Amino acid sequence: MKLPRKLRYGMIGGGRGAFIGAVHRMAAALDGHIELAAGCFSADPAKSRESGADLHLDPARVYADFAEMARREAARPAGERLDFVSIVTRNNTHFAIASAFLKAGFNVVCEKPVTLTLAEARKLRDLVRRSGKVFALTHNYTGYPMVKEARAKIRAGELGRILKVVVEYPQGYATGTVAETARAKGGAEAQISGWRANSAVAGASNCMGDIGTHAANLAHYITGLGIDAVCADLTAFAGGALDDDGNCLLRFAGGAKGILYASQVSNGEENNLVIRVYGTKAALEWHQEHPNELVIKAADRPVQIWRRGNTYLSPEARMATRLPFGHPEAFIEAFANVYRSAAQAIADDVFGRNSPRTGYDFPTIDDGVRGMAFIETVVKSSRARAKWTKFPKV
Amino acid sequence: MKLPRKLRYGMIGGGRGAFIGAVHRMAAALDGHIELAAGCFSADPAKSRESGADLHLDPARVYADFAEMARREAARPAGERLDFVSIVTRNNTHFAIASAFLKAGFNVVCEKPVTLTLAEARKLRDLVRRSGKVFALTHNYTGYPMVKEARAKIRAGELGRILKVVVEYPQGYATGTVAETARAKGGAEAQISGWRANSAVAGASNCMGDIGTHAANLAHYITGLGIDAVCADLTAFAGGALDDDGNCLLRFAGGAKGILYASQVSNGEENNLVIRVYGTKAALEWHQEHPNELVIKAADRPVQIWRRGNTYLSPEARMATRLPFGHPEAFIEAFANVYRSAAQAIADDVFGRNSPRTGYDFPTIDDGVRGMAFIETVVKSSRARAKWTKFPKV
Amino acid sequence: MKLPRKLRYGMIGGGRGAFIGAVHRMAAALDGHIELAAGCFSADPAKSRESGADLHLDPARVYADFAEMARREAARPAGERLDFVSIVTRNNTHFAIASAFLKAGFNVVCEKPVTLTLAEARKLRDLVRRSGKVFALTHNYTGYPMVKEARAKIRAGELGRILKVVVEYPQGYATGTVAETARAKGGAEAQISGWRANSAVAGASNCMGDIGTHAANLAHYITGLGIDAVCADLTAFAGGALDDDGNCLLRFAGGAKGILYASQVSNGEENNLVIRVYGTKAALEWHQEHPNELVIKAADRPVQIWRRGNTYLSPEARMATRLPFGHPEAFIEAFANVYRSAAQAIADDVFGRNSPRTGYDFPTIDDGVRGMAFIETVVKSSRARAKWTKFPKV
Amino acid sequence: MKLPRKLRYGMIGGGRGAFIGAVHRMAAALDGHIELAAGCFSADPAKSRESGADLHLDPARVYADFAEMARREAARPAGERLDFVSIVTRNNTHFAIASAFLKAGFNVVCEKPVTLTLAEARKLRDLVRRSGKVFALTHNYTGYPMVKEARAKIRAGELGRILKVVVEYPQGYATGTVAETARAKGGAEAQISGWRANSAVAGASNCMGDIGTHAANLAHYITGLGIDAVCADLTAFAGGALDDDGNCLLRFAGGAKGILYASQVSNGEENNLVIRVYGTKAALEWHQEHPNELVIKAADRPVQIWRRGNTYLSPEARMATRLPFGHPEAFIEAFANVYRSAAQAIADDVFGRNSPRTGYDFPTIDDGVRGMAFIETVVKSSRARAKWTKFPKV
Repeated sequence: MKLPRKLRYGMIGGGRGAFIGAVHRMAAALDGHIELAAGCFSADPAKSRESGADLHLDPARVYADFAEMARREAARPAGERLDFVSIVTRNNTHFAIASAFLKAGFNVVCEKPVTLTLAEARKLRDLVRRSGKVFALTHNYTGYPMVKEARAKIRAGELGRILKVVVEYPQGYATGTVAETARAKGGAEAQISGWRANSAVAGASNCMGDIGTHAANLAHYITGLGIDAVCADLTAFAGGALDDDGNCLLRFAGGAKGILYASQVSNGEENNLVIRVYGTKAALEWHQEHPNELVIKAADRPVQIWRRGNTYLSPEARMATRLPFGHPEAFIEAFANVYRSAAQAIADDVFGRNSPRTGYDFPTIDDGVRGMAFIETVVKSSRARAKWTKFPKV
Repeated sequence: MKLPRKLRYGMIGGGRGAFIGAVHRMAAALDGHIELAAGCFSADPAKSRESGADLHLDPARVYADFAEMARREAARPAGERLDFVSIVTRNNTHFAIASAFLKAGFNVVCEKPVTLTLAEARKLRDLVRRSGKVFALTHNYTGYPMVKEARAKIRAGELGRILKVVVEYPQGYATGTVAETARAKGGAEAQISGWRANSAVAGASNCMGDIGTHAANLAHYITGLGIDAVCADLTAFAGGALDDDGNCLLRFAGGAKGILYASQVSNGEENNLVIRVYGTKAALEWHQEHPNELVIKAADRPVQIWRRGNTYLSPEARMATRLPFGHPEAFIEAFANVYRSAAQAIADDVFGRNSPRTGYDFPTIDDGVRGMAFIETVVKSSRARAKWTKFPKV
Repeated sequence: MKLPRKLRYGMIGGGRGAFIGAVHRMAAALDGHIELAAGCFSADPAKSRESGADLHLDPARVYADFAEMARREAARPAGERLDFVSIVTRNNTHFAIASAFLKAGFNVVCEKPVTLTLAEARKLRDLVRRSGKVFALTHNYTGYPMVKEARAKIRAGELGRILKVVVEYPQGYATGTVAETARAKGGAEAQISGWRANSAVAGASNCMGDIGTHAANLAHYITGLGIDAVCADLTAFAGGALDDDGNCLLRFAGGAKGILYASQVSNGEENNLVIRVYGTKAALEWHQEHPNELVIKAADRPVQIWRRGNTYLSPEARMATRLPFGHPEAFIEAFANVYRSAAQAIADDVFGRNSPRTGYDFPTIDDGVRGMAFIETVVKSSRARAKWTKFPKV
Repeated sequence: MKLPRKLRYGMIGGGRGAFIGAVHRMAAALDGHIELAAGCFSADPAKSRESGADLHLDPARVYADFAEMARREAARPAGERLDFVSIVTRNNTHFAIASAFLKAGFNVVCEKPVTLTLAEARKLRDLVRRSGKVFALTHNYTGYPMVKEARAKIRAGELGRILKVVVEYPQGYATGTVAETARAKGGAEAQISGWRANSAVAGASNCMGDIGTHAANLAHYITGLGIDAVCADLTAFAGGALDDDGNCLLRFAGGAKGILYASQVSNGEENNLVIRVYGTKAALEWHQEHPNELVIKAADRPVQIWRRGNTYLSPEARMATRLPFGHPEAFIEAFANVYRSAAQAIADDVFGRNSPRTGYDFPTIDDGVRGMAFIETVVKSSRARAKWTKFPKV
């Protein structure tokens, strides 16, 4: 990527101690084309100010109120103006913040799930469309080179017709030492952390919203298949209102069958997102915790392990790579690929390129709407005792 | 095991070219305490005779009719009499053959699924109980030492309360070159082999009967938990009457949730039976294709790999082992463990030991009834569009 | 294999509690073509008798003196006569026992290392040649199907010219709890078990003799390359006369370079024999503890995992297999392949087949001589402070 | 890390298309505390200028002559002055460039091998000492969190006394398609790329200098053991003056034995650096291509897999981590850890902290001298036909 100057961005959320804000900053910084110029890191002015100082920001551009930030940053002269903002706050605030910045004329990068409800997501989609601005959703797992290779193989027909998709996303954090301590005092079997247990903040689902949407998005990105219906069984082992485990049967458009599960009570699992796609000609398997490899299997042929960084890979996989083979890339680079692709679109907006606004490879508001539809459909199916529930038209 | 003489057995089925008959013979022979003395290897007299000759049998004890074999072998003098028979024929014949030999006073080892229907299985159970004879069902995966270790750990409470069970059994044989050839001519996407596609021979399910029952049995053996209800989606990608793929949500007695799937259209998978059990204290994971290892995971602790043959294992695992660590054991040894344990019970019957007839570790007619109930329940649930269906009282 | 009757064999060594004798018996029994008919299981008459009873042998054919056994068994009538003997005693007795039975007209299967010294091995080779009898040496790792596949690939030129061979054989038994206890009392850092520490029984080397010879034999079997010179550094961490660890640089005929190491003080390793062979066109890698897979690597191509039991394998690998893919085979089956191949040669001797006495695939006395040369060469090199030492003409 | 402002650095080398320069820039940028402010990216003025423009640099601070850069940047006012430079040029230029910048008062980060010869390295060490400046050498593999965990375990005595070290570094690039093409025309079996084949640029060794030094440095970093003597066999399969493969026996101070090998002709290997360290109490194993795991083995205990990001790890490993468990980190983060630790030392120099100039965790000029001694010793040993050669006093 060649740009006339660095892109400037502001961050909303991501103050001291926040995990995902730091990830966004590393991802944005990696290629040297994006610089942080403003931020509203916390609604607590002191905390926001200190976070801004940690990050070497001009104190005049550090805010504690996102609306004020949108207003004042929009008023900056062109040579200082932010090219985009990154929203890394809690789920229930995404809609208002994204709306404010889109209306103020900024491009937006936003954490998932995109909003609190499907209705909000649809409204935001309308706003994005009207604004003409870039809206990128950080379903970061699509940024891995070998995920792009998987998608390229399926697009090229190398798997034949897809018969079955299995996507698994077990985590075990909710059963760790915190839960052990609670259990010892007669508490529930698991503990969801903080605001994620609160439906007013997290939405209709905790586990399916937090990580199930990643699993569903990944399956869609790789296979291109839409979900036709789901049959879901969500459980709240932690005893609260929201699920911490969910198992789904899937039917895809075109007849493929599937299983999707996400869990935060799978003791000892870390972030073990795995997808396997079986087609008539071949199958593929990818493990997020070993992301540099893509396994290709087919009956009556040796198993193949395709490895990142090699010349034999698709252009999509090769372009998403920074290091030679054997020098492993991982989570940050994948995240940075979402940023890099979004930055290309943003640069085209900012610098007035004539290139068509298509062909970018990053998740959009449409993925956001699809994700919210997924959450609401699995919740509905589970409440109806695992009844097959049609996926709504998005 | 110390026996006053070798046990003698006869085989029904398992003629030239049959896979599973040869497996039974190797498993029986491994420890040097069991010898083949008679057989009805095929209903085709010439084929049975030739198979008997291959196996160095006395031609006078090679039959083409199992009923004749039961009658004539029962008439032999004590010093020649068979101690048990092994039934390795097609599903639809198990009931009649097992009944004939039990009635003639023989102990029985039988392939799974135990019968064609649940009703037959219940009848056979009655007969076994009345006969007082040993009936062993070759759910061979329970014979692996590290499966026994998994069970011992759960029995000892090392996993805490079980929250979730995931058991996967993908095979891909139905999508191999045979299917490719068929597809090229406009055929279905998959091909089930031979009699397995015929419900009159295979029963109400192909895939769930053939391998799904192994998965369900393994989950039961390891966790000790009964299935309370299933919600199943079976598919016949090969286009016939019987499934070649099935996905199930499970609810276990006591509240654990689960996923069980079995497939023969998972291209490139060989015999990839995997089980993961998640408890409040820890989790375990076992892969049939790498059977010498048992993975133990728990949040906030290093992953552990327990390996066959070590002194730190449970007595159950150590007693099921023949070789020192690092000298891998596999499928045949596990199968031989079912034979060895059944042989102990048979020897107690034959040699009139006073030891109580309990404490043996091999699958019985009760496992057979449970397996048939599993088949009929998943078929029923799937036909009702994945409705949660109660597991019948067995 | 089709034989007119079962082959009969006798065992020397392998009494109660012995590991390798039981392995030989399982390997011999697996295919149902070989039966144990006599034995000299121990020089202690009571122990030999009890071992024979455990194994259901005729007490008249159980001995405590191998010379007596050779004499009396040779005197048996043809219909009872042993077709071969298996020698599973300590290293220092192989020469005398093998000589006695060869002279008495028996075929011989023998444990490695073949003798105590290279000089003995050469004498035994002369005797074998004069006798015209079959002599099979149980370098059992050559029996694995994927080892045969490795060899077939190299023979077919698929690796191109071999540039480098790395063969590693770490074990850690000598550093286990026994050693811990000893160290706590001020003992050495490691403990070699029993007679293996005694050069009068074990020979010039413990570790290199016990497992280094397997490594060297495996490299030779797979690559077909002879060792030209070695540069070795042996260590006795246990403090005795004999090595428990050895590292060697190798030069092969034709210019390939290599590393071979064997160790019994590699804490936590079980029986981790690994070979990697790098050629100009491709490379291969095989792990004894995961024996059903053969990894094929080449620059600029996906890694391939060739798996046992598939139709795409070489005839050599397919013929060495008993179970379908995904149903893992392991140590015993590999061992049984040595027996099966030797049994074919023995049957050809016994039943007077006209087939040429070539083309069998089992280790012979020539491998034994080569192994003793390996031991003596590495010991010599190490004593000369890792001087490059020519491999003697064998 | 909290800094009053971002650190500013300049780069020498690393123009368009260079691999390692881009790695340094990503590593420096990752944490948001270091910014690129000047550069001499190429001796070709146009190329340097274009590279500077790609990187959004002020053209006035882009040079084509490093001496001019040192002079002019040293003349800048304090508020613009570089805090350090990063040298990513070819081996033969390191000494002159590092000397120039040290003399001009700059801190230095430098690629390995540190110089062309051991003599140069010693001279540079003197200069560093006299300058009082920070000199960091990018032996980046020491930056991995699980490498730091390995070191912490050994320092804490968890492995007991070290008996054996095996460090392997196979690559296969020299046997790839380029070599295939050359071989097809009758060329050598392998092809070393570009200047690495030229001893005037690369030094006395290609393979041992390029990657063997990493292996030796890693072994030293983890174990703390100095090499006492080496016995080496280097080979130039590509047929030139410099090695592309080298195998070494090692003796460490204190009695541990070892094997170290590095290769660029190991077909199909990518960057497969692996280290195994065996002690009396336990052993450890780490694979660069799967860097988030550290395997701990001990006889009579389950294997343990320690995983990055967990609370159970040592402070050293936890401080070297940016992401939660299960969100894999890789090469860039490890590299960034070298930068972060060096940046702390540089900040202490620049901002006049009173903290003692010790306790930093990055490779220094002493590692550089040790690396050059390693190269010269293995070359000497190999030329003397693998004679045991004492490691010089460094």
